[in-house]
Amino acid sequence: MTTATSDSALADAFRQISDDVDACFDALLTVPDDPRAVLYQAMRHAAIGGGKRVRPLLLTATAAMFNVDRALAVRVACAVEAIHVYSLIHDDLPCMDDDDMRRGKPTVHKAFNDAVAVLAGDSLHALAFEILAGSQSHPDPFIRADLIVTLAEASGPNGMAGGQMMDLEAENAKFDLPTVTKLQRLKTGALIAASVEMGAILANVPVEGRTALRGYARDIGLAFQIADDIMDVEGDEALAGKALNKDAAAGKETFLSLLGLERAREQAFFLVDQAIGHLASHGREADLLRALARYIVERDT
Amino acid sequence: MTTATSDSALADAFRQISDDVDACFDALLTVPDDPRAVLYQAMRHAAIGGGKRVRPLLLTATAAMFNVDRALAVRVACAVEAIHVYSLIHDDLPCMDDDDMRRGKPTVHKAFNDAVAVLAGDSLHALAFEILAGSQSHPDPFIRADLIVTLAEASGPNGMAGGQMMDLEAENAKFDLPTVTKLQRLKTGALIAASVEMGAILANVPVEGRTALRGYARDIGLAFQIADDIMDVEGDEALAGKALNKDAAAGKETFLSLLGLERAREQAFFLVDQAIGHLASHGREADLLRALARYIVERDT
Repeated sequence: MTTATSDSALADAFRQISDDVDACFDALLTVPDDPRAVLYQAMRHAAIGGGKRVRPLLLTATAAMFNVDRALAVRVACAVEAIHVYSLIHDDLPCMDDDDMRRGKPTVHKAFNDAVAVLAGDSLHALAFEILAGSQSHPDPFIRADLIVTLAEASGPNGMAGGQMMDLEAENAKFDLPTVTKLQRLKTGALIAASVEMGAILANVPVEGRTALRGYARDIGLAFQIADDIMDVEGDEALAGKALNKDAAAGKETFLSLLGLERAREQAFFLVDQAIGHLASHGREADLLRALARYIVERDT
Repeated sequence: MTTATSDSALADAFRQISDDVDACFDALLTVPDDPRAVLYQAMRHAAIGGGKRVRPLLLTATAAMFNVDRALAVRVACAVEAIHVYSLIHDDLPCMDDDDMRRGKPTVHKAFNDAVAVLAGDSLHALAFEILAGSQSHPDPFIRADLIVTLAEASGPNGMAGGQMMDLEAENAKFDLPTVTKLQRLKTGALIAASVEMGAILANVPVEGRTALRGYARDIGLAFQIADDIMDVEGDEALAGKALNKDAAAGKETFLSLLGLERAREQAFFLVDQAIGHLASHGREADLLRALARYIVERDT
């Protein structure tokens, strides 16, 4: 059960990572005094001052379990967030989901225009790999390479972009539960799993030692999406900072449409319990990951 | 001067690299048997069977000067070409340059649709870094990191994407020659320079030893763009495989509009001579780079 202590520790951790990620993007995205200024302004609009920063918190919380230097973990977390933000910019485009609001602000193509939105997304995409490969990344080049492969796989056609493609196809075909599960494992699950994995990679945890953390990440990734599906139907647009109820309007099958509200909710709680179970061999150092898992199904945005 | 020997050696090299790049993409882009199939088909449409492969040839020709294993150089060249192809897909979108034809085929958004084009570009972007960081890349992780930083910098907001942003702004402002030069150094020059640089990185040429090659790359990058500007006005659309005369129609200043045809042509030849001059300390092993430099201003597509 959620305790007052873990709730307040989690709230503090969210505040801290939001500040740290904002500061990191602010330093990385200094607006140049030339015609590229608008590109940087668009990147800043999307990357700074918004979002829950769930992926950065997953990464830094995992890294902190193994006493990884926080400044390094935050920097690597910004690479993951840069990928997430680029995907939101492109996903919101008129030719994709056509959304006007994101994180309580106009989407990039609304605040700027479609062309700037395409380039701002592309630029944040490149920035992510520049961060991971650069001189301020982890000093061990094997670890850098591991981080880069993990993020590239999670974001490419066998991860996030592949999931978005399946999501486009979901409007034309009635997907069954295994197909919706695969779609979501790729679309959101892959990057959530990569966040935990990269925290462990930073700590040089060998592949064998990452099995439990992988199980945790896999379960919360799916729970996160089921909770999102529920909020898409039951949530408050003002709180969410974006339009809701879009999947049903587009005729897409979701966990909710396939399972019904009650079973979907049960499944999300089951997955969170299972995720926490994967952390059984860890002590208090995993409390933040446990609180995060609970938050994922209890949040209202 | 161009000799019959170097012409035929260059033609052979172009044929060989085209075949090798096609084979590499063919192996990397196996179409999956799930709803992502259309995404892979779109990536294949754009990446296989078209284009001059100038960047891959620059990379493999530079690597060959230092006896780098060809299969490895081709793989790294495919990462650079994946970035180039993704940029073409996004650049051709209706909200960007709005082009219907590319490399003699319908553009991706014409053959598929805008959403698939966005995702196919994003997927090729991620694929590039997956190639460079993966297990079949260079075995030395320091070299892998160097390749990745070089490609990320050349393609991000301080390289190609920044140049594309300046190109968008060029429709609204009358750029002067230094600004057009900066635009082109970023938009096309950065990736051309990265191609040569990455060939040298693969060979573990120390930074000091890359100065001459950098000068070569910088000069041919600009010459390439001046030649492109000239072809945009004087070229044959059927040969080029794309629409021409777009810059003048959009009211953009170019090397041609700023210098006039005669001076632009002189400048391109001057840059090629200067580029070849940078290779003076190299012997016959640099002949392919010399032939490539001449080709850049003598080509008709």
